[in-house]
Amino acid sequence: MRIEQIDFFYVSMPVIEDRADGSQDALVVRVQGDGQTGWGECEASPLVSIAAFVAPMSHSACRPVRDSLMGETVNSVDDIRCLSAKVAANSFDMLQTPHTLSGIEIALCDALARQKKMPVYKMLGHEKKYPKLAYASMLFAPTPEETGRHAREAAEQGYRAVKFGWGGFGVNLEHDRALVEAIRKAIGSDVRLMVDVGTLWSNKTDEAIKRVQMLEEFDVVWLEEPFESMEYPHYAELSRHCKKLKIAAGEGSHSAAMAKNMIDHGKVAFIQIDTGRVGGILPAHDLAEYALKKGVQFVNHTFTTPLALSASLQPMIGIEKFDICEFPVQPTQLAQDINRPLCVTDRNGMFDLPDGDGLAIEVDLAALKKYLVQVKIESHGKVLYESPKI
Amino acid sequence: MRIEQIDFFYVSMPVIEDRADGSQDALVVRVQGDGQTGWGECEASPLVSIAAFVAPMSHSACRPVRDSLMGETVNSVDDIRCLSAKVAANSFDMLQTPHTLSGIEIALCDALARQKKMPVYKMLGHEKKYPKLAYASMLFAPTPEETGRHAREAAEQGYRAVKFGWGGFGVNLEHDRALVEAIRKAIGSDVRLMVDVGTLWSNKTDEAIKRVQMLEEFDVVWLEEPFESMEYPHYAELSRHCKKLKIAAGEGSHSAAMAKNMIDHGKVAFIQIDTGRVGGILPAHDLAEYALKKGVQFVNHTFTTPLALSASLQPMIGIEKFDICEFPVQPTQLAQDINRPLCVTDRNGMFDLPDGDGLAIEVDLAALKKYLVQVKIESHGKVLYESPKI
Repeated sequence: MRIEQIDFFYVSMPVIEDRADGSQDALVVRVQGDGQTGWGECEASPLVSIAAFVAPMSHSACRPVRDSLMGETVNSVDDIRCLSAKVAANSFDMLQTPHTLSGIEIALCDALARQKKMPVYKMLGHEKKYPKLAYASMLFAPTPEETGRHAREAAEQGYRAVKFGWGGFGVNLEHDRALVEAIRKAIGSDVRLMVDVGTLWSNKTDEAIKRVQMLEEFDVVWLEEPFESMEYPHYAELSRHCKKLKIAAGEGSHSAAMAKNMIDHGKVAFIQIDTGRVGGILPAHDLAEYALKKGVQFVNHTFTTPLALSASLQPMIGIEKFDICEFPVQPTQLAQDINRPLCVTDRNGMFDLPDGDGLAIEVDLAALKKYLVQVKIESHGKVLYESPKI
Repeated sequence: MRIEQIDFFYVSMPVIEDRADGSQDALVVRVQGDGQTGWGECEASPLVSIAAFVAPMSHSACRPVRDSLMGETVNSVDDIRCLSAKVAANSFDMLQTPHTLSGIEIALCDALARQKKMPVYKMLGHEKKYPKLAYASMLFAPTPEETGRHAREAAEQGYRAVKFGWGGFGVNLEHDRALVEAIRKAIGSDVRLMVDVGTLWSNKTDEAIKRVQMLEEFDVVWLEEPFESMEYPHYAELSRHCKKLKIAAGEGSHSAAMAKNMIDHGKVAFIQIDTGRVGGILPAHDLAEYALKKGVQFVNHTFTTPLALSASLQPMIGIEKFDICEFPVQPTQLAQDINRPLCVTDRNGMFDLPDGDGLAIEVDLAALKKYLVQVKIESHGKVLYESPKI
């Protein structure tokens, strides 16, 4: 397949609310060539990732991402690896590069697997899929009562694992305890519970350590992202204070090397990878193998669409030991509309990828059109980017 | 000072050549408020960094950089630190954020120090400036003869340290030897020599190890960036193969935590920091203190304008032990035109910052105008950015 066309579709809800819900917009990527089509998605900040695709060259190691890709040929997984290495070398002084590349790489994997008439995970060498225990990923509500109600609803829907994050958690110890207690009461002792603080305690290790005992008391499986992505000394110190509680992190990784450092120096027990940030499916696949070797559990990071969920699960779906997956349980209307099929869990709270070639997710162009943001970028008297016509 | 206005000036040479010369364009930042003005510069890819300043919010941790800054008040160094932390928290899912922030932070430091009527390094707590041995930073020419000629010219101009990088170096061992030999012959034994390979050998540790002996034979002080920024295991392994040769790296650091990891886990002897990428002057200052404590030498990374050179030197100029600085010896006409004074070394190859408040560098608006690139970014039916009128 020769890469003839790469299109970026920036779609958005009409109003973006000021909350930690990553499904309010999306940057969907379509790659086309030789009659083949593949779809992918970049995580977060569509306009900036589009800019990195088209920005004028600054010097030989700071080129627009598109310059390394257009006209190139992809006939194998190794070809995709080579192209990713080429982008990394040609654009390494442009920080946004891995986010832009991620969606394109996913689309290339989708197209290649479709051409080979096989699912992506089989192209990666996995024999079969293992359904995963889906954890309902939700935000803390302002009060313990409301948070408890959301937790109960999730358990009633059949989820056997829930994760709560962000909201007001992390500022007041007593309030935090009340929130976690309300959840545990609502879901009972059999449902796994995780807590995510979204890097809130960066450079405040004490704040994290203070909460370890309370989280262990309510049998929380993991505490997620207590600090920023590269604060390994803080991560390692916190781990030393935990008895049962494990630490999870890694969603901010924008390269396989970065995530490996989180495993080796941050001493996390769960490494969370978003294929829409880490450079796509192949570096995530390498990481899953690395995690397996190191006794660390690989978990997808996904808060957006079924397409992103499928992409982030491909590297782990064939590995039985990685038994739990993040599942966006309250996605926006946009995230429900633009892909088919919808991803749903079974009555036991298990999730399996749909069967089919590539990522086995179709993009609904009519729905994309409904949410498409009109963007135009001009520089040096030329139009560098304009939202594609649908 | 209340931040009333932040302007980004994208300036560029008329033609960007396909070579590793970072002085071909620049993103200059002006911050204004309460009658004060400060100037800064972001390193590389102007259009992408502008996009991160104005991009529509994706969710609560992915906001445009400007939203955390406009209208805020800066009266102390701590105020700047707080604003940087606010940007990091509000925009951490937007990868380009630290590059955009860097130029603004530098401009805030410049404005604050001017308001306090003192140089930035004094505001950081340093008593005095220590002139540095300037190393002439140059690119390998295609042949040993031409490379040797450039080296001789630099030595004749008074430079007592030279660094060669990029070009064709790193592919063929015999050619590499011929290049280094020609330089050493041209400069004699008294001039310090460094070699930079710009991450060429990522995941190819053997290629780096193969060259250690040859580089030691010609008394090369450091080998720079053999691998990508976060490949600590490769860095540490290479260090174990060196007798006299030291390893230098870190210019890609986009946070203080990242650079500290390079020191602690990559085992480099020289940590190279670009204030236009790492988040500005204050994180670089913290790093200089950290490096001092760890017995590692802090070196600026600068390949662009006098303004960027002044910014990158402020954190180290007051520390006598950090005795060598990068000095762009062949800057483009643009980099020579837009700032005053020009930075020059003395006849002994030493460089000292000009005296004056703030960064002690003035921006020539008429020259900026000459090189200004007209950019327009529209989204959601609104103009998000348009190049400022001069």
